[in-house]
Parts: sequence; structure tokens; C-alpha cells
Amino acid sequence: MADQSIAVIGLGSMGYGIAQSCLRAGHRTFGYDTRPEQQTRFQEEGGAAELLDVAAPTLSAAIIVVLNAQQTEAVLTDLLPRMAAGAVVIACATVPPAFARAMAEAATARGIHYLDAPISGGAVKAAAGQLSIMASGTPAAFAAAAPTLNAISETVLRLGDAPGAGSAMKAVNQLLAGVHIATMAEAMTFAMTQGIDPGTFMDVIPHCAGSSWMLENRGPHVVAGDYTPHSQVNIWPKDLGIVLDIAQEAGFPAAITQTALAQYRKAVEMGLGTVDDAAVARVYAEAVGLTLPGDAP
Amino acid sequence: MADQSIAVIGLGSMGYGIAQSCLRAGHRTFGYDTRPEQQTRFQEEGGAAELLDVAAPTLSAAIIVVLNAQQTEAVLTDLLPRMAAGAVVIACATVPPAFARAMAEAATARGIHYLDAPISGGAVKAAAGQLSIMASGTPAAFAAAAPTLNAISETVLRLGDAPGAGSAMKAVNQLLAGVHIATMAEAMTFAMTQGIDPGTFMDVIPHCAGSSWMLENRGPHVVAGDYTPHSQVNIWPKDLGIVLDIAQEAGFPAAITQTALAQYRKAVEMGLGTVDDAAVARVYAEAVGLTLPGDAP
Repeated sequence: MADQSIAVIGLGSMGYGIAQSCLRAGHRTFGYDTRPEQQTRFQEEGGAAELLDVAAPTLSAAIIVVLNAQQTEAVLTDLLPRMAAGAVVIACATVPPAFARAMAEAATARGIHYLDAPISGGAVKAAAGQLSIMASGTPAAFAAAAPTLNAISETVLRLGDAPGAGSAMKAVNQLLAGVHIATMAEAMTFAMTQGIDPGTFMDVIPHCAGSSWMLENRGPHVVAGDYTPHSQVNIWPKDLGIVLDIAQEAGFPAAITQTALAQYRKAVEMGLGTVDDAAVARVYAEAVGLTLPGDAP
Repeated sequence: MADQSIAVIGLGSMGYGIAQSCLRAGHRTFGYDTRPEQQTRFQEEGGAAELLDVAAPTLSAAIIVVLNAQQTEAVLTDLLPRMAAGAVVIACATVPPAFARAMAEAATARGIHYLDAPISGGAVKAAAGQLSIMASGTPAAFAAAAPTLNAISETVLRLGDAPGAGSAMKAVNQLLAGVHIATMAEAMTFAMTQGIDPGTFMDVIPHCAGSSWMLENRGPHVVAGDYTPHSQVNIWPKDLGIVLDIAQEAGFPAAITQTALAQYRKAVEMGLGTVDDAAVARVYAEAVGLTLPGDAP
């Protein structure tokens, strides 16, 4: 099955690893990004070099790994008319379910399969080809996407035939992940007010019932004082904003999500939008006059 | 080292399993509770039968597993004058750090060791002798408590010489655990508004970055519609109340904790105080008109 021709559009921290995984699986792989240096770097690693306009009709799959719904729509407006019938779009950005349904309809009208396929797992798992994918789409879309999904994922969570279900589950996951990071920050800085340093916090809590996947992943960034942006603070106003938009449409009172979002908004106001999201701890530290590891007192 | 004489005071869901673990390790074990049927049941399993007044001077260790600071103080006021110098009190209730320091002082004044030793792990781990214990106290207190800790715990997290540090870490853990349960409830019911049923939610989220220890532990209760109280809703207004009291003293703004606490308070107002804490999902379900598994529509 290594006869696929795959384009990865968006070579950020997730997309670059996805493209590398496709290449490693033996597929002809094109990588596209608005930053030319990312494209060049990928071509130097073995990526195919044609312009997207030229490559589009030859693609078996296009993986869209851009930031949001607006960018996804811009890519697809350009790409769908150029792709061949029977090819598949694998759409990975976190978007509202209704947007995924609209894009699937536009693809289907041109005979192109559409997989609503948000991803979870972070840059390390993307590079290892071990993502979790929350996917929904027709059986034909899953079949067309199978060689690509095999190359990039460890787990494909099949959420039914209807586009939108994958995006809905991703929104649910983001609600949890976003709240858990902010709660890690709240708990770790609260601990500091009680004389417990961040290192001791991370030695103890992962053994206890208060642990979470995000706490174990992001807590060490605060302990190390290292806010290299594996995932930026800016992700959360966007993703929790999507959660709250669709919650509001459903009349659903997402009070804890709202409170967590307020912490990320404060972090953005403090100028922390482009650093690692663990830096939301600085919102709490500043409020109560604590000095986090690596920060100036 | 199976020559210890141990009293477990409070034979609730945690204390009963702790007492069983002491017995299984070969120690002479007394079990006390305000409910005579709990004491009788434990004696039928092999527990020693003397009244506490008679047993107290013979004890090497007294484990206090009551509900709160008030009950702990009532027990110790009665018990400390009767215990022998060199014995150890192992205090397991979730209490404010300052209270732990005061009790340790009262014990030390009588030559009795005091271990500030809140527990984590739930009733199943208590019965298996596999608790995590967040403990602080003098090296002499740890030494005196060692045979008992070996019988009841898998992990002893040593948090230094000062009583209060164990209770502070427990408060931190409870902040996280309480927020995570309420967030599980918020996310699972939000998912239902998007057409994702609780069973699918639990099939997917534990594979994703949004998971937490509490989500994996409590989520299945909602899926099964089984609110048998392994841990009651009533625990959370108490424990998050302790967190917020000491946060307030430190001038710390625990906004997410405050919002989670509001959900548990609503659950108590709905008459759910004595059922399993996963029932906080009903607060959300009622707000938006959802029917949870096992509930009447």
C-alpha cells in the first residue's frame, strides 16, 4: 500500500511530524506551508517538490493540518476543484462540527471523500506516527484514507459515518485538556503558597488520584522553567472558544470551561500567547506574588 | 514486626479496609466506630474486642480515619491522655495544615509521636493495603509508624519533618481531584449535547490527552447509572472548602476550584449529598434537560 501520493498542508509542530511519518511509510509525500523554509526543509528530508497546483490532481490524499476553520476553508476552496474524484481529504484542525459537515458536503459534491479527523497526542507522537485520531466519515472515506491513517496514527477512534462527530469529540477532549492544564497551574501555584515547591508537587501528584494526562505532560515545563512552545497558550482561547460557542448553541452552561478560558485570556493579555501553554501558571504566580522556577523574582 | 497493637478509629469505607489490612499483616487490631454494627462486623473478622479506654494504654499506633478536623480533635482529646509515651498517632482525615500542626503539638506534649498522614486511593486500595499516604512528621514518628504504614500502604510520600506538609499536599490533591470529577461531568454532558453518548465518551477519552485519573475512575459510574456512594458528593463541599479557606488566607485566587465547588453545592441542594460524587453530572443534565443512563426521563 506504499503507492500513495499524499499532500500534507500545514508543516507546523503537528503537520511536520505527520509528513515525516508519511515519508517513512514509503509514500510519495508533498509538504506545503506558508513558510518557504519549512517546505525546503521537508524537501531536503525527501519530500516531493511539485507546486500544489501541479500535484493536486495526482493526490490520493490531502491532510489538512492548519490552525483553524478559516484556514481549512481557504485551503479547500483552492484545493477541491483541483483534486481527482475518489481522492480523500483528511481534515485535522479543531473546528466546529457544523463547519466539518459543510466542508464534507462541498467535497462530496465533487466526488471527493472527506474524513472529519481531528488529532490528539502532541508533536512527539505526530513525529512517531503514533497519533490518536478522532475520525468520522463514510466507510468509503475511511477506506480511501486507510493507508494514510496507518502511516500517521497509533489509534483511530471511529466515531460513525457522519462528518462532525469527530470534531464534536475533539471539542470534548479540548474542554478537558484545556481545563486540566489550567487546573494544574492553579494547583501547583496553590501548593507553592503552602510551602510545597513545584518539583515536590510533580514527585507526588502523579502517584495520587489528582493526576491527569496534561498535568504529567505540562507540569514538568513549569518545574524546568522551560516554555518552549510545544503547544501555545494561543491554542486555548481558540479551542475553548469553539467549545463555548457550540455549548451556547446547545444552551449548555460550561461554567468550569468558562473559568479556565478566563485564565488563558489573562495569559494572552500578559503577552504569553506564543509561549508554551504551561505558562498559564504565570497568571496565578503574578496574582499572588510567587516566583516560578526560571523566572526573575 | 507483626507484634504491633493498632487501633483504627473510624470504620467507614476507608477505615474498614485499613483495619482489615492491619489484621491481614498479623497485627493485633482494634476497630472503633460510632456504629456498633461496624465494630461487631470487624470483630467477627478477627478484630480485638476491648473497649477503647482499656486498649488505649497498650497501643503502639492509633490510626484516625474520621471525617474531618472536628471529629479528629474529639477523638484525640479523649485518646491522647490514655496512650503510652512512645506510641504514634497516624492522622488520616483531610484537615487544614494549621490544625495538623496544633494536634501534633498536643501529642508531642505528652510524648506521643504524630504523623500528619492524609491518604489517597479509595476504598478498594484501602482494603488491599495499597494506599498512597502523603505523610509528614519527625523521623521518630515515621519510625514508630513504619510497621503500620507497611501494612496499609503501597506508597508513602515523605513530605518532610513538619506536621502540616502532609495535609497541605492532600489539599492540593483534593483541589485537583474535585475539579477533575466536576470537569468529567461537564465534558460528558457537553458531549451528550453533541450527540456523543456517555459510553462512547468513555471509549474514546481515556485514549486522549483529555483524560484524568478521576475521569477514568468516576466516568464509568455515570455510564452505568450506578451512584452507590464509594465517595460521597458531601466530601467535596468539605474538602474544597478547606482548600478555599487556606487559599484565602494566602491571598490566592483559586477561580477554577471555586467554580467546581459551586457544582457540588448545587448537587447537594438537589438532594444528592449522600450518593456517589459522579452524580455531579446530574447538575449539568438537569440544567440542559438531558437524561443520564439509568435516570428517569
